[in-house]
Amino acid sequence: MRPSGRAADQLRSIRLTRGFTRHAEGSVLVEFGDTRVLCTASVEERVPPWLRNSNRGWVTAEYGMLPRATGSRTDREAARGRQQGRTVEIQRLIGRALRAVVDLEALGERRVVIDCDVLQADGGTRTASITGGYVALADAVGTLMKSGKVRRNPLHGQVAAISVGIHQGTPVLDLDYAEDSEAETDMNVVMNDAGHFIEVQGTAEGHAFRRAELDSMLDLASDGIERLIAEQRTALEG
Amino acid sequence: MRPSGRAADQLRSIRLTRGFTRHAEGSVLVEFGDTRVLCTASVEERVPPWLRNSNRGWVTAEYGMLPRATGSRTDREAARGRQQGRTVEIQRLIGRALRAVVDLEALGERRVVIDCDVLQADGGTRTASITGGYVALADAVGTLMKSGKVRRNPLHGQVAAISVGIHQGTPVLDLDYAEDSEAETDMNVVMNDAGHFIEVQGTAEGHAFRRAELDSMLDLASDGIERLIAEQRTALEG
Amino acid sequence: MRPSGRAADQLRSIRLTRGFTRHAEGSVLVEFGDTRVLCTASVEERVPPWLRNSNRGWVTAEYGMLPRATGSRTDREAARGRQQGRTVEIQRLIGRALRAVVDLEALGERRVVIDCDVLQADGGTRTASITGGYVALADAVGTLMKSGKVRRNPLHGQVAAISVGIHQGTPVLDLDYAEDSEAETDMNVVMNDAGHFIEVQGTAEGHAFRRAELDSMLDLASDGIERLIAEQRTALEG
Amino acid sequence: MRPSGRAADQLRSIRLTRGFTRHAEGSVLVEFGDTRVLCTASVEERVPPWLRNSNRGWVTAEYGMLPRATGSRTDREAARGRQQGRTVEIQRLIGRALRAVVDLEALGERRVVIDCDVLQADGGTRTASITGGYVALADAVGTLMKSGKVRRNPLHGQVAAISVGIHQGTPVLDLDYAEDSEAETDMNVVMNDAGHFIEVQGTAEGHAFRRAELDSMLDLASDGIERLIAEQRTALEG
Amino acid sequence: MRPSGRAADQLRSIRLTRGFTRHAEGSVLVEFGDTRVLCTASVEERVPPWLRNSNRGWVTAEYGMLPRATGSRTDREAARGRQQGRTVEIQRLIGRALRAVVDLEALGERRVVIDCDVLQADGGTRTASITGGYVALADAVGTLMKSGKVRRNPLHGQVAAISVGIHQGTPVLDLDYAEDSEAETDMNVVMNDAGHFIEVQGTAEGHAFRRAELDSMLDLASDGIERLIAEQRTALEG
Amino acid sequence: MRPSGRAADQLRSIRLTRGFTRHAEGSVLVEFGDTRVLCTASVEERVPPWLRNSNRGWVTAEYGMLPRATGSRTDREAARGRQQGRTVEIQRLIGRALRAVVDLEALGERRVVIDCDVLQADGGTRTASITGGYVALADAVGTLMKSGKVRRNPLHGQVAAISVGIHQGTPVLDLDYAEDSEAETDMNVVMNDAGHFIEVQGTAEGHAFRRAELDSMLDLASDGIERLIAEQRTALEG
Repeated sequence: MRPSGRAADQLRSIRLTRGFTRHAEGSVLVEFGDTRVLCTASVEERVPPWLRNSNRGWVTAEYGMLPRATGSRTDREAARGRQQGRTVEIQRLIGRALRAVVDLEALGERRVVIDCDVLQADGGTRTASITGGYVALADAVGTLMKSGKVRRNPLHGQVAAISVGIHQGTPVLDLDYAEDSEAETDMNVVMNDAGHFIEVQGTAEGHAFRRAELDSMLDLASDGIERLIAEQRTALEG
Repeated sequence: MRPSGRAADQLRSIRLTRGFTRHAEGSVLVEFGDTRVLCTASVEERVPPWLRNSNRGWVTAEYGMLPRATGSRTDREAARGRQQGRTVEIQRLIGRALRAVVDLEALGERRVVIDCDVLQADGGTRTASITGGYVALADAVGTLMKSGKVRRNPLHGQVAAISVGIHQGTPVLDLDYAEDSEAETDMNVVMNDAGHFIEVQGTAEGHAFRRAELDSMLDLASDGIERLIAEQRTALEG
Repeated sequence: MRPSGRAADQLRSIRLTRGFTRHAEGSVLVEFGDTRVLCTASVEERVPPWLRNSNRGWVTAEYGMLPRATGSRTDREAARGRQQGRTVEIQRLIGRALRAVVDLEALGERRVVIDCDVLQADGGTRTASITGGYVALADAVGTLMKSGKVRRNPLHGQVAAISVGIHQGTPVLDLDYAEDSEAETDMNVVMNDAGHFIEVQGTAEGHAFRRAELDSMLDLASDGIERLIAEQRTALEG
Repeated sequence: MRPSGRAADQLRSIRLTRGFTRHAEGSVLVEFGDTRVLCTASVEERVPPWLRNSNRGWVTAEYGMLPRATGSRTDREAARGRQQGRTVEIQRLIGRALRAVVDLEALGERRVVIDCDVLQADGGTRTASITGGYVALADAVGTLMKSGKVRRNPLHGQVAAISVGIHQGTPVLDLDYAEDSEAETDMNVVMNDAGHFIEVQGTAEGHAFRRAELDSMLDLASDGIERLIAEQRTALEG
Repeated sequence: MRPSGRAADQLRSIRLTRGFTRHAEGSVLVEFGDTRVLCTASVEERVPPWLRNSNRGWVTAEYGMLPRATGSRTDREAARGRQQGRTVEIQRLIGRALRAVVDLEALGERRVVIDCDVLQADGGTRTASITGGYVALADAVGTLMKSGKVRRNPLHGQVAAISVGIHQGTPVLDLDYAEDSEAETDMNVVMNDAGHFIEVQGTAEGHAFRRAELDSMLDLASDGIERLIAEQRTALEG
Repeated sequence: MRPSGRAADQLRSIRLTRGFTRHAEGSVLVEFGDTRVLCTASVEERVPPWLRNSNRGWVTAEYGMLPRATGSRTDREAARGRQQGRTVEIQRLIGRALRAVVDLEALGERRVVIDCDVLQADGGTRTASITGGYVALADAVGTLMKSGKVRRNPLHGQVAAISVGIHQGTPVLDLDYAEDSEAETDMNVVMNDAGHFIEVQGTAEGHAFRRAELDSMLDLASDGIERLIAEQRTALEG
């Protein structure tokens, strides 16, 4: 039995609320159960130096946690003067994942920044960020297309992500914080709407995992991401 | 006529939502119109070095804006590696304002950190932070008293804050961003529930202001803060 | 009785020594009693990025304290790698105060930096900095006008500042360190030569202050600043 | 045909030179073809704060590249004042990988730091670092056991790592820089001597990869790592 | 002929003003012509971590230049967030030079910090700092001995420093800024009152210098330092 | 007798291995006994801002030590976020020394960066860096001349460096770490192939040194450097 009482292949309750704040070109509150992340997409009419005059755009992500998003307060990174290694890893992952479905030439010489700020954390903040970040990005792209600044849709697919793990010997989907703390293996999987892999990151926390366990986790992840892709579609059509 | 269409002495719609997130000892979403700030109060059983073995506690504040809380995206301070001067000024102000109603000996040798994170900005984020921060602090203190860790109520008063300014020659209350951008004078006033001043910060943006103008602004602020104090009381009784 | 033995409305001995060092376009040693601040004004033929090609100039200030300006040594900010919150607040205040009397278009596309370095501290360093910084700025502007680089006088007024406070229940003018440490309220007031306010910053240190106390402090400040404005004029005519 | 002319499942020439420098408790030059990394293991008789008085030790890694290890010079991180995101990711990966085969209680309350400094880069520096870092760690552990400071062998397994990828549609093993630049998918696999997974990190660089491709890459990696494990054993017996 | 009109072996006008500011245990304004440096000595009853419980003290120096001590303004190091290489070199030199005449055991477990802040620069700021820093240190030591905290005089000698150089083929003493800018060789010499060397730092700016030139410069420096040592003695007896 | 068993005027075994790594325009492993430094020379077709459009080039150096180059591990400067004072001093010295034999106009508007990374330290790393750095620079210059980018040889001399010191009252050449730790005086001397001085840096570690001691040390250094210059020539002809 999982601590959450969920079935092994059961996602937490998923919510995608568009237009959560009003200034950003895309603003989505994504909830995976008690995990709540505000994803905003900001369009800027400039690109990083290495892309100037390239006719190509860029999509990047930044990630942060409010100090008391977690059970005990963590130091504010702005006050400490540096981002932690974990933060840097996560925001690089989110950026790579989203760029995997973007045609940067079609986007044109501009930058979209996806800010993922965790208001409340209960495990899976990086997968929620990718899943919600995609919807914010889609809204920003929609704005660009409506305004005529972008002609051809730069999004050539959807992307979503979920965590899987081995909990007390059983592969389980979408771990919350309590499950994640006890899991022997933790894996984050990013896939597109064609069911192909964009990123796979699995780490043995306790003992090393076998190939069969890896296979089961990948199966669970594929099913979960299919459902997230559907949730994204519903949200964007809403 | 104010850009917002409000009367000169009219506050924006005020909302104080307690329990907005679940981990913190106090968690309040404060809204002054479109300005939305999440204020959390975190209790830590340790004090800064200079208070060790003093039998006194500490209350401090940190302030941040999500990068896209504003009309155009501002750089993430954690990524830049330093907090801006404006941020430092605001969080020092919030901390001083809240400490003005706290008996630090009654609090005991522990620290309460008030994190004020702006989810959406439309002027007056520092006054909203003080007003909402007080409610979060009151909730955290309530938790400490219920648990028996604190015997005597460390709060000896309420504190709230509002901005006033001179807009097209007229003193007005609670400026939103559009009004603030055009105001000739901008003043932030912090008062307690006895109607006394805790902090007054007035700055001439355009031309210098006269004593009579200062007096009118202080009158407006007193009235506005009285209403905010009542809103706080209602929220805490709710 | 004040610790300093002064009457409630009595300034400390004020000295403004022009030409204290020889390289700067303006160089003034300002003394408010034992508080000694070296204010230099440096003209640079460039502006911050956001003013390029705007035909407008800029005036900014930086503030520092020599490590042993104070009773016990404070860490050198350059060695610690960051300026303290207090330093940032003060230099922002000095810059705003001086810009309030400058026509930035008349100044032309150049920058004047006012460096205020405290050689010896005994309370009131920020008000001494503003008062002395104005004289240094006036000397730099004089140099620019003599050289013909600036045609129209960019200074449309004088600016000076003083602290006031409530000490043992009595409003007093120009607090030294001993008085400031005991004061219940501390207020810094910046005014121009027309007797209007440029900045008012009052903070309750002990208990909150009443409107009548605020009024008395403002009256004291007005009188004190009038005398400082006269001292500036005498120095500049000398 | 691979740019390197190797067969799809062929490793580059692997060399593990122990005792490359003389001060460290373990010092190994690892070469995967033209990639050369100096891995040193340093034993320190202290642990990070969170492990004090826990009777447990710690193993951590730091990673760096000499500025001209690469085709064009990269800025020295010490001079820039911060480690890049890529550096932080890699050193966290190396540390996790090595800790997966260490019994931290058997190690006792001390810290082993594995420094992996790239003298020459030609792809696969992180997998070479893990593979060589293990040998340096084993030498340091050997020293600790010979001295009697550690009684029970803290190493309960071997760990090695290799990269795999899809190059022009074909899964290939141990990519050099030229191959890596063109690869559609890049995956780093860390395994132990039992053939189980410690870490799997796969990223689609071009198009998303299918499950069958993932399976082929994992097969290649398993075979490659088995050979690396044998190389480590030979080196340690040498 | 030297730009300054001085004879080759002529020092600039030297002044040592004790008690220049009032808080520090030693406070000396040292002037070498137009170069003016404020040297303060601060006694702190604690030592760096590596000297705790060693019964030995420490003497260290910090160096800074006010931004407009120089002909054109230099950035404030506190604002830039780091000390320049030149600053670090100079303060390390001053610290080494002063420690060369201090018996750190006789000083006892405490630290004396010599802050050397350049108010006006005209060449030779580091040699002025050492020469004036010694007098400030002597005053601080005098205070410690008078108070009985230190029994045995920790100063076992005097130390002073001067620059020498080759200007238009001629060895000259005590270069001012104009001479230093044109000099082919620049050398700083630190000696004690026995006429022995504590530090010699010579750098060819133009062409390399010969042994005979080096010898002449050392002769000039010896004579100059003898006179500085006498000036220090006079100042301390004054 | 020296700890190393060498005669007072005996160098350690010197080796200069060109082409140690393959990417850099010059790559030399220099060994002074157990001190091993990798010196690479990187040519970049850009100059620092202050040399743009000047038709002059620049030569600069950076210095680093691998964390475990030393007997006990030192913190990685990249991880600490700043270079130590010692590092900054050394790299400034190396840069000055090398520029002393370069005609920056003949080099043309480009930059050569000499990276000196200490793989193993046993005293004399800065003198080894200068001596080996010259050979790397000569190789990079050779590449530039072969390619025709540079017409006139920018090297107008050779430069090498050695340490000398007073060990148990005797002047000795080329101190290793054990000797350096016990030396009463430590001096680094940089000379060119004409036997003239480029830099002399002598520091009394124990007691101050006399003129006769200084003279002996300079004699030893001259002889030693003459031999190093010959070693460089042999290596470059090899």
